[in-house]
Amino acid sequence: MKTLIKVDTTASPESQDVLHNRWHPDIPMVATVKPGDEFRVECVDWTGGQIRDDDSAQDIHTVDLSKVHYLSGPIGVEGAEPGDLLVVDILDVGVLPESNWGFTGIFAKSNGGGFLDEHYPDARKACWNFSGVYANSRHIPGVEFAGIMHPGLIGCLPSQDLLDTWNRRETTLFDTDPDRVPTLACLPYADTAHMGRLTGDARDKAAAEGARTVPPREHGGNCDIKDLTRGSKVYFPVYVKGGGLSMGDIHFSQGDGEITFCGAIEMAGYLDIRVSLIKGGVEKYAVLNPIFETSPIKPEYGDYLMFEGISVDESGQQHFLDATVAYRQACLNAINYLKLFGYTGEQAYAILGTAPIEGRISGIVDVPNACATLALPTGIFDFDIKPNADGPSAFPMGGADLARAAG
Amino acid sequence: MKTLIKVDTTASPESQDVLHNRWHPDIPMVATVKPGDEFRVECVDWTGGQIRDDDSAQDIHTVDLSKVHYLSGPIGVEGAEPGDLLVVDILDVGVLPESNWGFTGIFAKSNGGGFLDEHYPDARKACWNFSGVYANSRHIPGVEFAGIMHPGLIGCLPSQDLLDTWNRRETTLFDTDPDRVPTLACLPYADTAHMGRLTGDARDKAAAEGARTVPPREHGGNCDIKDLTRGSKVYFPVYVKGGGLSMGDIHFSQGDGEITFCGAIEMAGYLDIRVSLIKGGVEKYAVLNPIFETSPIKPEYGDYLMFEGISVDESGQQHFLDATVAYRQACLNAINYLKLFGYTGEQAYAILGTAPIEGRISGIVDVPNACATLALPTGIFDFDIKPNADGPSAFPMGGADLARAAG
Amino acid sequence: MKTLIKVDTTASPESQDVLHNRWHPDIPMVATVKPGDEFRVECVDWTGGQIRDDDSAQDIHTVDLSKVHYLSGPIGVEGAEPGDLLVVDILDVGVLPESNWGFTGIFAKSNGGGFLDEHYPDARKACWNFSGVYANSRHIPGVEFAGIMHPGLIGCLPSQDLLDTWNRRETTLFDTDPDRVPTLACLPYADTAHMGRLTGDARDKAAAEGARTVPPREHGGNCDIKDLTRGSKVYFPVYVKGGGLSMGDIHFSQGDGEITFCGAIEMAGYLDIRVSLIKGGVEKYAVLNPIFETSPIKPEYGDYLMFEGISVDESGQQHFLDATVAYRQACLNAINYLKLFGYTGEQAYAILGTAPIEGRISGIVDVPNACATLALPTGIFDFDIKPNADGPSAFPMGGADLARAAG
Amino acid sequence: MKTLIKVDTTASPESQDVLHNRWHPDIPMVATVKPGDEFRVECVDWTGGQIRDDDSAQDIHTVDLSKVHYLSGPIGVEGAEPGDLLVVDILDVGVLPESNWGFTGIFAKSNGGGFLDEHYPDARKACWNFSGVYANSRHIPGVEFAGIMHPGLIGCLPSQDLLDTWNRRETTLFDTDPDRVPTLACLPYADTAHMGRLTGDARDKAAAEGARTVPPREHGGNCDIKDLTRGSKVYFPVYVKGGGLSMGDIHFSQGDGEITFCGAIEMAGYLDIRVSLIKGGVEKYAVLNPIFETSPIKPEYGDYLMFEGISVDESGQQHFLDATVAYRQACLNAINYLKLFGYTGEQAYAILGTAPIEGRISGIVDVPNACATLALPTGIFDFDIKPNADGPSAFPMGGADLARAAG
Repeated sequence: MKTLIKVDTTASPESQDVLHNRWHPDIPMVATVKPGDEFRVECVDWTGGQIRDDDSAQDIHTVDLSKVHYLSGPIGVEGAEPGDLLVVDILDVGVLPESNWGFTGIFAKSNGGGFLDEHYPDARKACWNFSGVYANSRHIPGVEFAGIMHPGLIGCLPSQDLLDTWNRRETTLFDTDPDRVPTLACLPYADTAHMGRLTGDARDKAAAEGARTVPPREHGGNCDIKDLTRGSKVYFPVYVKGGGLSMGDIHFSQGDGEITFCGAIEMAGYLDIRVSLIKGGVEKYAVLNPIFETSPIKPEYGDYLMFEGISVDESGQQHFLDATVAYRQACLNAINYLKLFGYTGEQAYAILGTAPIEGRISGIVDVPNACATLALPTGIFDFDIKPNADGPSAFPMGGADLARAAG
Repeated sequence: MKTLIKVDTTASPESQDVLHNRWHPDIPMVATVKPGDEFRVECVDWTGGQIRDDDSAQDIHTVDLSKVHYLSGPIGVEGAEPGDLLVVDILDVGVLPESNWGFTGIFAKSNGGGFLDEHYPDARKACWNFSGVYANSRHIPGVEFAGIMHPGLIGCLPSQDLLDTWNRRETTLFDTDPDRVPTLACLPYADTAHMGRLTGDARDKAAAEGARTVPPREHGGNCDIKDLTRGSKVYFPVYVKGGGLSMGDIHFSQGDGEITFCGAIEMAGYLDIRVSLIKGGVEKYAVLNPIFETSPIKPEYGDYLMFEGISVDESGQQHFLDATVAYRQACLNAINYLKLFGYTGEQAYAILGTAPIEGRISGIVDVPNACATLALPTGIFDFDIKPNADGPSAFPMGGADLARAAG
Repeated sequence: MKTLIKVDTTASPESQDVLHNRWHPDIPMVATVKPGDEFRVECVDWTGGQIRDDDSAQDIHTVDLSKVHYLSGPIGVEGAEPGDLLVVDILDVGVLPESNWGFTGIFAKSNGGGFLDEHYPDARKACWNFSGVYANSRHIPGVEFAGIMHPGLIGCLPSQDLLDTWNRRETTLFDTDPDRVPTLACLPYADTAHMGRLTGDARDKAAAEGARTVPPREHGGNCDIKDLTRGSKVYFPVYVKGGGLSMGDIHFSQGDGEITFCGAIEMAGYLDIRVSLIKGGVEKYAVLNPIFETSPIKPEYGDYLMFEGISVDESGQQHFLDATVAYRQACLNAINYLKLFGYTGEQAYAILGTAPIEGRISGIVDVPNACATLALPTGIFDFDIKPNADGPSAFPMGGADLARAAG
Repeated sequence: MKTLIKVDTTASPESQDVLHNRWHPDIPMVATVKPGDEFRVECVDWTGGQIRDDDSAQDIHTVDLSKVHYLSGPIGVEGAEPGDLLVVDILDVGVLPESNWGFTGIFAKSNGGGFLDEHYPDARKACWNFSGVYANSRHIPGVEFAGIMHPGLIGCLPSQDLLDTWNRRETTLFDTDPDRVPTLACLPYADTAHMGRLTGDARDKAAAEGARTVPPREHGGNCDIKDLTRGSKVYFPVYVKGGGLSMGDIHFSQGDGEITFCGAIEMAGYLDIRVSLIKGGVEKYAVLNPIFETSPIKPEYGDYLMFEGISVDESGQQHFLDATVAYRQACLNAINYLKLFGYTGEQAYAILGTAPIEGRISGIVDVPNACATLALPTGIFDFDIKPNADGPSAFPMGGADLARAAG
């Protein structure tokens, strides 16, 4: 597999012109391929190396979240035009030999937050060792699982029109509560924009309006879909000539929802890609968001323990068919359950964020309660987590826990 | 398998004292079993026979939704006490020989509504034929799938305290917009309450405060979780002496979300059940909502086409991490896709509601967009639905469509 | 589902003219259907009621094996002609309400034998209770599994030419060692032949040459393929006008190989069938033996313990690429393993015959040893069967064992 | 992952003392590890580089089969003693960056042979390109599948006693027909023995009696079990102090049976391994041959077309419960079927040898016919291989075929 884009995980991402951290149609292609080509794209981890493999979460606490999601690309595809579908086979995802580890962060509510930041407001960190296809962590004993490796972030460059739409609608939301922490939306921020090979005034103009990479949008982007794993085939809408495919934020594994925010197991790595085109495919297939075909090789654990949640929040307040609230309750129920086996809440929270958890919208029409379910594979634990008449026994955790930020 | 509760699908549900359609601690047990017992429970369909196997949706249009969810039970379990977990093995789910069909309704926005009622406001109906483990419909050509049979509704009687909590919190929500159609919550309504064997003043008091069966709640209830299928094992909290297990609303199949409201394939049928107890299990396992173990026999289609949705609604408005909005967009994307193969929107909507669709909360932390995915098994169609360079070909539907209400 | 063929499990099979127990082209059709029809076929158990639900294996010891495999049929299909493929959807397989149990026999070496009859020469019996989709046995504690229900025996009537071929080649084999016990082949035997509605001289002629039902042959027949389960679609060659589809020997479950001879869980039951035709399909698809598409609903246990066997037999003798010997060793290895947990050899043998075991020909070219594997699903046991540092613990079997024959 | 054993695929295997190609207790350990250690072992391909990535099968035709199965090892494990079980987690299997291809050989009947060498007696070759997790071949259009990577050959050194047993029993078989081609067994052959770091007289003695690596035996060895894939856990008997674990013959993929002899996709590559011990485990678990736990990540194709075979051979001769003959017929049936879509017999043969085919012993007790089944995943083809009323259409193969040996 020929390497199309090479990165240096020891250098600053800003110094590497094959990376960028904003979405803008003017970012120049860093390489060009033909339909049918197969190639390797290396990627730095989503923080561009801000996080270390150690036992302090100080780096999570102070991470600069405007300097994240350094993407490799954009890659031009010969013949790609707006309205085409760019067909991307994710042939493989792997670890860089020099970087055989990953991390999961619970972000501080004051800097990033997460799905359960009301319950877990402080920065915490778990580091993961990769044992071939398996991940395990010195910070979370008793659990090991096969990774479902995937790019958290992948998509084509937006057109100027699409970019304008994004900025308009997100600003509208932001303006409804501009002082909220965490923020309602991440608006363009030129100071830390890395616009790839764009220079001078063109760079400055693009940096000022380039969309942040945080949310998933019509082009895909930061979808954090664990099922986009190696072996899957994705159909991306093309908005600019050449397509401009960029990717990064590789995850060794992730549970549905990526609930700790940086809930996946984050890593530097590579993606092996094959591209082709369906001319005019956006209209042919009425594609608004990317669609994809699933992979024949993903972790399959046959046996699951499932937790339910309904849209009544922790305070007892009733919400109307709110799947987000319901899934939060399912998560909290699972965390409370796992704590009975000796895990701290933070450990359990991190397990749900990283292991191949299925998070489902089970019922969404029975007013006023949405019902969400969380499926926890029982086979990932070194001990039996299923209920029995005797009740749970604590597993010897040996005092291990997620790392904390200093003082 | 001995039949513990027998129903008559040709008689009115009100005339059968083994049924009830409200939740209340005072409803008398209609049968008592011992831990370890296995038994069959017959159930009427959720509307108690209001819907017919014909080609008009008039019955859907005018259905009385206060007279639904006739449950078989409650069943007392010897030795069950508040705080125990009632372990329920769903050994089998099946069709009654005299009633080998089912239906799916798109409910009128003015009477029930549904997940996409802004797009599909009118009453429509599809009838389904059961060919052994498969379902097919004269109203929706070109699709046949293996059912994932399950009770839409199952759980134990609430305590008076829990009932009071339900009524309080749902009334609070209702009062925020009491005139909304569809309603924000279904409050107690004595007129059409069927309180089983409760009579006289006790019946009237209970009917006035008995919780409606519509939403899922702490005890389980109307969860509409397709994964609660035959072969699964469920742990229900017990709130009253004897437990009082009731069940009904059997589905031949359902997609995650049950999006057309009556989106499952509804049927009369039976449940084969085995019960046991974990004494004190609620505290032992910190159970708030039921938990369950999945079944080794459920439909497994290896190949899925997945649709993404983000929390930007059809009008382009930005919502904040709203999984409900995101899943709605994934559903709309899938419907638009299926229409290219010749389906009407209503047919596509009904397919998503009934087939074994996986609806996942894929990303829920990337402000401001939640990302939901909908996985459509490709093997359920008589034709190839995967994208190719030539674009989709329409399948000959022969003019079939969902039934409509009169004039 | 309309019942096309009804049986009486309390009457003698000989008295029912919708049954037959030999293969012959002249057996008259007992019913006729059209392509596209769906219908139910009831079947007696393979012994026609010779075995009882009790705690003695005397019935197994003395069973008359020339009076077995009473098949329901033959069924004529309008338009079917020699050279067509008869497409059979096995829509469902189920239990008759009056007969909710099954049995597994280890047959005496002197009367039937089995795959391991050198080790287990005596008649033994296990009776099974059906708990919905699950089977369990008072004779084999600690194990319960989801059934993979299927007809052990199904196929179309042979032509006279094909029948002659069968008789010729099996007689040739038989004649190489005519006194062997168990016999090398079961040749025609008029005395106990049940030729359905055939009467008089025609009956006598056909009885004298009708092929026994024991082996699988080109038309399918007694294949005992567990994967022919409900939800599968089978393509059968047609040899006579009308096809003449017959079926029986229903199994609630079976492991690959059906190793105890009557190794499946045998039962009376019903098959729901849909038929259609591919005209000229035998030549179009070069079909010699039936082919089939697998079912989306079969038991899926994610986790297996696998045993290997090579073609060196128990005495240490080397065989040349003999998959039969290799699989026998894999079976013996698994039995020896299960005995460490408290099972008798006979119990372990019966588990391998009945549970959804995968038996694979893993390597067949590495002279002189074939390598076969046996995959045992770990989730069917009430206890953990995987190896650990402490070694196995015996499960309390309470003295239960397979029933024995008297004296 | 630290590399414990490094190989040079461009050097001759004889020149590398970390390799050996015979089994003997005296071969010195080339590295020592501790229980709990994880490490990488590089391996040359099974022919030690005799086969090239080109379009001639001359190299297959003339390959020296006494110089194959160069294994990396033996590896000593601290504390391992005879009677222990060596627990080997196969953490990962992968391709060497400098060698991103593989090959499948149909071996000449006169030099190696294969399962169907009566039908396909000539040397042929297919080369495979690895596209990430997928394999495809310029010699076999229209098919691409996810690899199930595994070591074809892995196990511990035999004791002198075990070695003597092997030699004795294989010689006995060989002597029954010493001139047979292919040979009945591969006996010790000192000329081409590579005994690792053993030198001098000790080397010569060991070379003269060292067991050839061809067959699987009690210790495992050349099992060619596709399910021993990355993510699985294997329990190997230990026969000598330190264990002496050796491995090689890596397959990118293989169908059950590895029917073309070199039927897998053969490659150089690496294995990531974790070792631990169960002291006294051989007796604790009554282990004769290795046992293993399956992997949660292996290719899962949901939909299979299954072919049956019975123990009547191509000439019409009847064999007695011979699973080998039955599986051969299932293979021939599948080959004949695939030819209708445009494949040559050799292409079809190679597909069955390499793709993730399931080969099952379905019925093994119904005298005189064994029944074997071959499950072909339909999703690996670029076209629809399932039967329909119109019959098969040939796929445009563009004249591609397996490479041939020179005139």
